[in-house]
Amino acid sequence: MTPVTPAAPVSLVTGGAGFIGSHVARELLDRGHRVIVLDDLSGGTAANVPAGAEFRHGSVCDPDVVDAVFAAHRVDYVFHLAAYAAEGLSHFIKRFNYMNNVVGSVNLINAAVNAGTVKCFVFTSSIAVYGANQLPMSEDLVPAPEDPYGIAKFSVEQELRVTHEMFGLPYVIFRPHNVYGEYQNIGDRYRNVIGIFMNQALRGEEFTVFGDGEQTRAFSYIKDVAPAIARSVELPAAYNEVFNVGGDQVYSVNRIAAAVCEAMGVELRVNHLPERNEVRDAYATHEKARKVFGAPGLAVGLEEGIGRMAAWVKEVGPQEPSVFSGIEVVRNLPPSWAAALEERRTI
Amino acid sequence: MTPVTPAAPVSLVTGGAGFIGSHVARELLDRGHRVIVLDDLSGGTAANVPAGAEFRHGSVCDPDVVDAVFAAHRVDYVFHLAAYAAEGLSHFIKRFNYMNNVVGSVNLINAAVNAGTVKCFVFTSSIAVYGANQLPMSEDLVPAPEDPYGIAKFSVEQELRVTHEMFGLPYVIFRPHNVYGEYQNIGDRYRNVIGIFMNQALRGEEFTVFGDGEQTRAFSYIKDVAPAIARSVELPAAYNEVFNVGGDQVYSVNRIAAAVCEAMGVELRVNHLPERNEVRDAYATHEKARKVFGAPGLAVGLEEGIGRMAAWVKEVGPQEPSVFSGIEVVRNLPPSWAAALEERRTI
Repeated sequence: MTPVTPAAPVSLVTGGAGFIGSHVARELLDRGHRVIVLDDLSGGTAANVPAGAEFRHGSVCDPDVVDAVFAAHRVDYVFHLAAYAAEGLSHFIKRFNYMNNVVGSVNLINAAVNAGTVKCFVFTSSIAVYGANQLPMSEDLVPAPEDPYGIAKFSVEQELRVTHEMFGLPYVIFRPHNVYGEYQNIGDRYRNVIGIFMNQALRGEEFTVFGDGEQTRAFSYIKDVAPAIARSVELPAAYNEVFNVGGDQVYSVNRIAAAVCEAMGVELRVNHLPERNEVRDAYATHEKARKVFGAPGLAVGLEEGIGRMAAWVKEVGPQEPSVFSGIEVVRNLPPSWAAALEERRTI
Repeated sequence: MTPVTPAAPVSLVTGGAGFIGSHVARELLDRGHRVIVLDDLSGGTAANVPAGAEFRHGSVCDPDVVDAVFAAHRVDYVFHLAAYAAEGLSHFIKRFNYMNNVVGSVNLINAAVNAGTVKCFVFTSSIAVYGANQLPMSEDLVPAPEDPYGIAKFSVEQELRVTHEMFGLPYVIFRPHNVYGEYQNIGDRYRNVIGIFMNQALRGEEFTVFGDGEQTRAFSYIKDVAPAIARSVELPAAYNEVFNVGGDQVYSVNRIAAAVCEAMGVELRVNHLPERNEVRDAYATHEKARKVFGAPGLAVGLEEGIGRMAAWVKEVGPQEPSVFSGIEVVRNLPPSWAAALEERRTI
């Protein structure tokens, strides 16, 4: 008998032209998957889609686009990373937030149930589901999100649990936090402080910091996050579970500013803006992830991670910061964001 | 000095052509409010809109429609009752469910924040947020919804909390349960067992019961629910709180079937269908509501409530049961619903 070569698993990666998604797509290709990337290029770029992946331009928010992908491919695994992850901005773009994060996710869940071929649905949630909870954030805490983005992510987590109970679709949920690294969009003024600082360094601008800069986050280098996400579908112990994933070490925004200056070779100049409505401190335990994934990543230190990202950013060059034009509520918008909106309006 | 007559408060009642909404609109008119009803007539009828209310035909899902209402009126209070409340069906119409219940609600919340005139946003959630939780359901339990409808309602509850923190918009949340009474749509085959039985009685059909009929619910007569909702905006102690509202007494579906037969003057004939995925028992405490509202309603007994509804139903006459044509997932659909869908297709 001729041994049958098993067919390569087919993985759909939404948001695969974006930051975390393109890294996950690369990891999956390395592991022998056939990879289809679905991305609307609202945050990502076609250049990010790794060679070897098949790229479809379209939005998860359009059920016809989603259904067409499932009609064209016998999808084994869904890695749903398409999202506009802007916690602070989500108060002012509630409708967009729920359309993008909830309705978009539900289109994929419906299609996965209807296809009947999907063995696991991997979803990147966020530590935004915890809100101003007790620290460290651990998976057994009851979520209490503080912003529409966190509420939307928490809804999709619940939706996956209910879909599993009703239709038997297995899932894995990750709650990454403050991820940075190569291929990140540094032209988004509303999120990803490391990318914002690097872009400001390239443009010769002061670094903008909300409040005193002593708010802390456990910044996570992408290579400590993407491999666990890609590998999760091979680990039965990960199925139908929720995992924090990311760095253990906590840094203040001021410490990040200094590290970026060092890596980018600029002098530290900070423009302190008024505080905004955000969680002061956020860090998470990763014991549960360690039990299932071993060392989830490379445990890359801050200086090394920022150094690698800085080298890539210098190649890419400065970006014109985008303005989100679909603001739904301007009341209480942080003044710097309101000014950016105003500038755009007067052009 | 001539005493100034205070202007009548302006209340927007969404879903005011529907069952609970039309009762709330009536209560508000009785209390001296100017009432604007916004309803897309998907479940309600224009005939339900009480005389004296101004009726606008349109959907909360359309932000332009919502914004136009707020542009035309200086709204003091929002009573948001527009919803398609079908727990069991929501597994199969997830996208519709989140569009209708979450995005529709968010359009109203955005408009209320932007208007800056709204003193309180009253929202009817559901005991569906509790899921298969410990009994009795009380407001201090952590919600654990078991279906997309409950997840959507829980999301809007969280959204109101976050909106209050960010923008200062006060809210009152009600979690009613199994409400029945005059003006209820008896032509919806997916929900409201009392109305379904009454319609089957009028049509000379057997009563359809999922499973053995021993599942229990605390059925609530409308007059024990609507007055508390209407009165809530006058009670500062109700602001930014969540209340169960409805009947204390628990009845099995079999008991309901017998009571409906009695009131409708028909013989009991039951067609037992296979069990469906639903919570077996559901009842709630109302201590919190009693503290704030006193006796929230009339404590109308089952026989009297069903008698009143039956008298109205006999006037209205039998209805052709509707079929929800936008089913998104047919897998695991209860066979009776699948058959109804199939019949409609073959016409």
